[in-house]
Amino acid sequence: MSSSEQISRTIFYISDGTGITAETLGLSLLTQFNDIRFKTVRLPFVDTLEKVHDCRDRLQKAFEQDGFRPIVFSTLVNPEFNQIFGETNSLCLNFFDIFIAPLETELGIKRSEKVGRTHGLTNNADYERRINAINYTLSHDDGITDHGLEEADVILVGVSRCGKTPTSIYLAMQFGVRAANFPLIPEDFENRRFPEALTRHKEKLFGLTIQPERLTQIRTERRPNSKYASPENCHYEIREAEKMMRQQGIHWLDSSSKSIEEISATIIQEIKLLDNQEE
Amino acid sequence: MSSSEQISRTIFYISDGTGITAETLGLSLLTQFNDIRFKTVRLPFVDTLEKVHDCRDRLQKAFEQDGFRPIVFSTLVNPEFNQIFGETNSLCLNFFDIFIAPLETELGIKRSEKVGRTHGLTNNADYERRINAINYTLSHDDGITDHGLEEADVILVGVSRCGKTPTSIYLAMQFGVRAANFPLIPEDFENRRFPEALTRHKEKLFGLTIQPERLTQIRTERRPNSKYASPENCHYEIREAEKMMRQQGIHWLDSSSKSIEEISATIIQEIKLLDNQEE
Repeated sequence: MSSSEQISRTIFYISDGTGITAETLGLSLLTQFNDIRFKTVRLPFVDTLEKVHDCRDRLQKAFEQDGFRPIVFSTLVNPEFNQIFGETNSLCLNFFDIFIAPLETELGIKRSEKVGRTHGLTNNADYERRINAINYTLSHDDGITDHGLEEADVILVGVSRCGKTPTSIYLAMQFGVRAANFPLIPEDFENRRFPEALTRHKEKLFGLTIQPERLTQIRTERRPNSKYASPENCHYEIREAEKMMRQQGIHWLDSSSKSIEEISATIIQEIKLLDNQEE
Repeated sequence: MSSSEQISRTIFYISDGTGITAETLGLSLLTQFNDIRFKTVRLPFVDTLEKVHDCRDRLQKAFEQDGFRPIVFSTLVNPEFNQIFGETNSLCLNFFDIFIAPLETELGIKRSEKVGRTHGLTNNADYERRINAINYTLSHDDGITDHGLEEADVILVGVSRCGKTPTSIYLAMQFGVRAANFPLIPEDFENRRFPEALTRHKEKLFGLTIQPERLTQIRTERRPNSKYASPENCHYEIREAEKMMRQQGIHWLDSSSKSIEEISATIIQEIKLLDNQEE
C-alpha cells in the first residue's frame, strides 16, 4: 500500500450541457487510478459568463481546501470560457479542445457554430427511438404480455432474477433497442414445454443464465428462507433452463460476473443487433 | 447546402471492454458535424491480437469501400494494439492515450497495470447501488405503491405522460438514484387534495410539467380520440397540476423541450442530489 492512498482529489465535471459526456470520460479514466480517493463535483449547464466565474471560484476553493489542484473534465466549447478555466489552479482536460481539430482536418469542414448539445434533443428521431424503446421494454417486462412481441428487437429469456430486466432497460436506454423479456418458470420445466408465445420468435431470443450460488444469494435478499431462494431450487431451475435453451438452440451467456453494460454489448454483438446502422 | 452532404464516413468504436465510453465520446464529438452521414461499426471486447488483426482488416475494407479513411474512436490501452491501429489507413482517436499521461503527471502515480474495465464490475459497491436503484425505481413507478417512499432519493410528480417514468429510470441507471414517481390525477384535482402519501416527503419531491400541446400529442399516440388525450383535458390537468405544485412549494421544470438526460441533470443539481459525493 502506497502513501498516496490517503490522498483525496477533487474532480469537477464542467459542461454547457448535462455534463454526462464529461463524466463518462472522467470516470473511465479514473478507473485507471485505484489508490486515490476522488470527490466529485458536477457543474452542468455552465452557459453564461456569470456561471463560469462561479465555477472558477469553486475551483479555487477546492484548491485551497485540498492543497492540490482540482482536476477538471470539461466539454465546454466556448473559447472565452475555456481561457478562463485555463488560467485557474487546476488540471483542465477539455475533451472537445483536443479532438475537434483533428476531426475538422479529417472531415474537411469546420464544426457547427452552434453549441452541440450531445444529450439534448439535437437528433429527434434517435431520441424518440430511445424513448419508444424504453416504453416498449417496460410494457414487455417479465412476460407481462405476449402481445406485440413481433415488434421486439430482442427477447431475453432466463430464470427469475438472472438479470433480464436491468439488461433490457439498459439496451433500450443506451441503444434504443426494443428489448422484451420473458421468464422461464418451474411450470415450464415440469411440463417440459418451452413458452409457446416465444417459439414464433426464435431468431430474436437470447438467453441469460447465472451461477446457482449467485442466484441463491440474489433471491435470498428478496425472499429469505423460501423454496424459491433455496440452493436446491436454484440449481434445479438453472439446470432445466439451460437444458431448455440448448434444446431450442438459443444463444446464451452467464451473467454472474458481468455488468449490464457488458451483457448488453455482448448481446448486440452476438445477435447482430444494430448492424443495419452500417448501411 | 454544401457538397459534403453527400459524403458518408465510417465510424468505428473499438474497445477492449463494452465500447460504451468510446461510443459516448464519439457521438458527442460527431454532433458537432451536422452535414456528414456516418455509418457506425461497434467492435467491443477487442482483447486479443487475433481480434486486433480482424479489426485492422475491417478498417482497411472500409477505407477501400468508402474512398475515405475510417474514423476510429478507441479506448484501447494495450500499446502493442494501439501501434497496430496507428499503422492503418484511419484517423485513430484514442481517448486514453491522450489523457492518461497528464493525469499520471498530475496525480504523481502511474495508472494501474491491469486493463480498467470502465463498464465492468470494477467497482462493485457502485454497481450494486445502481442495480438496486433500478429495482427500486421499477417497483415505485407510477405510484404503484406508497410503501418504501422513505427510501427514495427523489419522488417525481406530475400528470400522466409528462416524462416521469423514463426520467426516473435514467436517474437510477446513470446516477444510482432511487427515483420513485407518482402521478397527479384528475381525482386529486377534483378533490383539491395533494396525494397524502407524498406530504410526508416534501423535501424529496420534484415536479415535471409539459406544454399542453405536447401532452395532447403524446397522449393521442397512446389513446387517440379519448377524453384523456383531448386538448381541453390536457390543458385542465396541467393547469391544476401546476397550481397544486405551486401551493405545495414544489420545484418543477417543463419537460417539453428537454431530453431525459437534461431533465435528470437538472433535478440532480436543483435538489442537490449526490452532493454527499463531495465528501
